[in-house]
Amino acid sequence: MPKHTIIRIKAGEEHKHLRTCETIWEALTNANFDRHGLLLNLGGGVIGDMGGFCAATYKRGIAFAQIPTTLLAQVDASVGGKLGIDFHGYKNHIGVFKLPETVLIDPVFLQTLPERELRSGFAEVIKHCLIADARMWDEIRRRDLTEQNLTELVAHSVAVKQRVVEQDPTEKGLRKILNFGHTLGHAVETYFLAQPRKRLLHGEAIAVGMVTEAFLAHQRNMIDATLLAEIEEYIFSVYGKVNLTGADVEPIVTLTVQDKKNQGKQVRMALLDGPGRCAFDIPVTRSEMRQALDYYRG
Amino acid sequence: MPKHTIIRIKAGEEHKHLRTCETIWEALTNANFDRHGLLLNLGGGVIGDMGGFCAATYKRGIAFAQIPTTLLAQVDASVGGKLGIDFHGYKNHIGVFKLPETVLIDPVFLQTLPERELRSGFAEVIKHCLIADARMWDEIRRRDLTEQNLTELVAHSVAVKQRVVEQDPTEKGLRKILNFGHTLGHAVETYFLAQPRKRLLHGEAIAVGMVTEAFLAHQRNMIDATLLAEIEEYIFSVYGKVNLTGADVEPIVTLTVQDKKNQGKQVRMALLDGPGRCAFDIPVTRSEMRQALDYYRG
Repeated sequence: MPKHTIIRIKAGEEHKHLRTCETIWEALTNANFDRHGLLLNLGGGVIGDMGGFCAATYKRGIAFAQIPTTLLAQVDASVGGKLGIDFHGYKNHIGVFKLPETVLIDPVFLQTLPERELRSGFAEVIKHCLIADARMWDEIRRRDLTEQNLTELVAHSVAVKQRVVEQDPTEKGLRKILNFGHTLGHAVETYFLAQPRKRLLHGEAIAVGMVTEAFLAHQRNMIDATLLAEIEEYIFSVYGKVNLTGADVEPIVTLTVQDKKNQGKQVRMALLDGPGRCAFDIPVTRSEMRQALDYYRG
Repeated sequence: MPKHTIIRIKAGEEHKHLRTCETIWEALTNANFDRHGLLLNLGGGVIGDMGGFCAATYKRGIAFAQIPTTLLAQVDASVGGKLGIDFHGYKNHIGVFKLPETVLIDPVFLQTLPERELRSGFAEVIKHCLIADARMWDEIRRRDLTEQNLTELVAHSVAVKQRVVEQDPTEKGLRKILNFGHTLGHAVETYFLAQPRKRLLHGEAIAVGMVTEAFLAHQRNMIDATLLAEIEEYIFSVYGKVNLTGADVEPIVTLTVQDKKNQGKQVRMALLDGPGRCAFDIPVTRSEMRQALDYYRG
C-alpha cells in the first residue's frame, strides 16, 4: 500500500449517523486529505454507505472504492451508488447517489462472517430472485442456506441489481422494484432498533417485509396462492418467525410513512407481480398494512 | 403559493454548519417532506449553499431553486451548483456539486441591502471582470460603486461564471480560475472569523486576496506593473485597507493549506495572466505568500 491513513469505525447500524461522519471528516482533514485522495471502504454495508457518503461530501467529493466484506454489502449496498446515513432513527434519511470508482468483491471474506450475518445477507439474494429470476428462485428455494453456491449467487445478485440500476440510477421508476420487502421491512428494522434485546439484522427484517408484502401482492391477485405459500415456507424455514405482538403493529405501520418511496403521506410499495416479476409505486393503505402484519403474526 | 412550510435560519456565516443542517433536515422530516418536494432557498449565499446542500442530501436529493437576495449570492453563489457548509472553521469543507432546478435573480432585492453588503458582493463582480473581460474591467474601474449599473453587471457576472462552469462543472480544470483572490482571501476570511470585532464580509476578504494574488502574478511576470497598480488602487478606493499585523501573517498562510484547490500540502492558486485572463494550478510557496501579505501591509 502507498502512503495511507486508517480510519476505524465502531461496528453496527447504530453508529451510522452524523456524529460518526464528523469523526471521519475530521480524520480526513487532520490527514490533510485533498481532492485527489481515495477513500477505500473496507467492511460491511454501514462502512460502504457511510464511508461513501463522507467521501462524496468531503471537499465536495473525493474518489472512493467499495470493498464489501459481508454478503449483504456484496449483493446489495456496494452496487448502485446509494450512499447515506440514518437520521433521527430514519434509515438512510440523509445521503446522495454517487457511484464509486470501483467495487471489489471477493467471496473469501464470506468465510469470516458469523452464520447469522450470512443469513441476513441471503435475504437480498432471495429478493433478487423473486423480483427478477423465477428460474433461480425455483433453484434456491429447494436448498438450505448451507447448500447454496454463494459465489454463483453473489454474481447473480450483482448482475440483477446492476441491470436494474443502469436503467434508472436515481430511482425515478424501475429501480423501486429493488425495494420489494423493504417498506414494511425497514419499518420493522427501525422499530426494533430502539429495543436492543429484540434488534434484528437488516436481512432478518427484510424477511418479514417479503412475507408481508407478498401477502399484499396476493391480496391484489398479483401473485397466486402457490407462490405466496412457497415464499412463506422458505422464509420461515431460513429465518424462523419474528415475534410480533398486537401492540407492535400500529407503530410499525406508522413508521412506513417516512419511507423515501412515498408520495406525500401515501405509502407506495414495490409488490411482486408474478414469479420473477415486480411492479412499483403501488399505493397501500394503513389498514392493509395492519392486515399484512396480522397475517404474518397469525 | 401552494401548500408550503417556512423554515427560518439565523443570518450569518457562523450558522452555516452541520447543526443548522440538522434543524433544516428535522423541519423537512416533521413536515413529511417527500422526494417530490421543492425547497426554495430565499436569501443570501449562506441560505443558497446550506439550503442547497440540505436539499441535495435529504432522502438522497430533492429539487431546489435558488432565489438569491444579495449581490454576492446573485453574481456568485447561486450560479454553478457548488453547495456546502463550513466544518471546524474550514469554509465549504463539506458539500456537493448539484445544479438547482432554476435560479431566479431579481435586482429589486438589491435595494434591501446595506451598503456594506453591496460592496462585499461587488468584489465578485470585480473578479469576473479581471479574469474574463478586460474591457469591462476598464469600465468599472473608472467608476465608484454607487455609479455602477448593477443590473447590467449582475447579468455580466452570471454570464461569465456560467460560461466557465459549463465547460468544467466539477472544477477539474478551467473552473479553478473563479478562485482568483480566494486562496489567500478565504484564509483571511477564516482567520478573522474567530475574532468577532475584526470579522470581514466575504467580499472584503476576497478584496485582500485579489491584491495579494495580483502581487504574486506580477512577481511571475504574468501581469505588468500597470495592471497591478490599477487593481491595488481601485480595490483600496472601494474597500480601504484591512489592518493586518505582522503576527497575522503566519496563521493566515497556514490556513491556505486546507484549500480545496491544493494537491497534497502544496498550495495552488489561480493567478491573473494578463488583463481579462487567468491561469490556474500554479504552485505557490509559503514564503511567497508571506511576501504577498507583507506587500499588502506595506
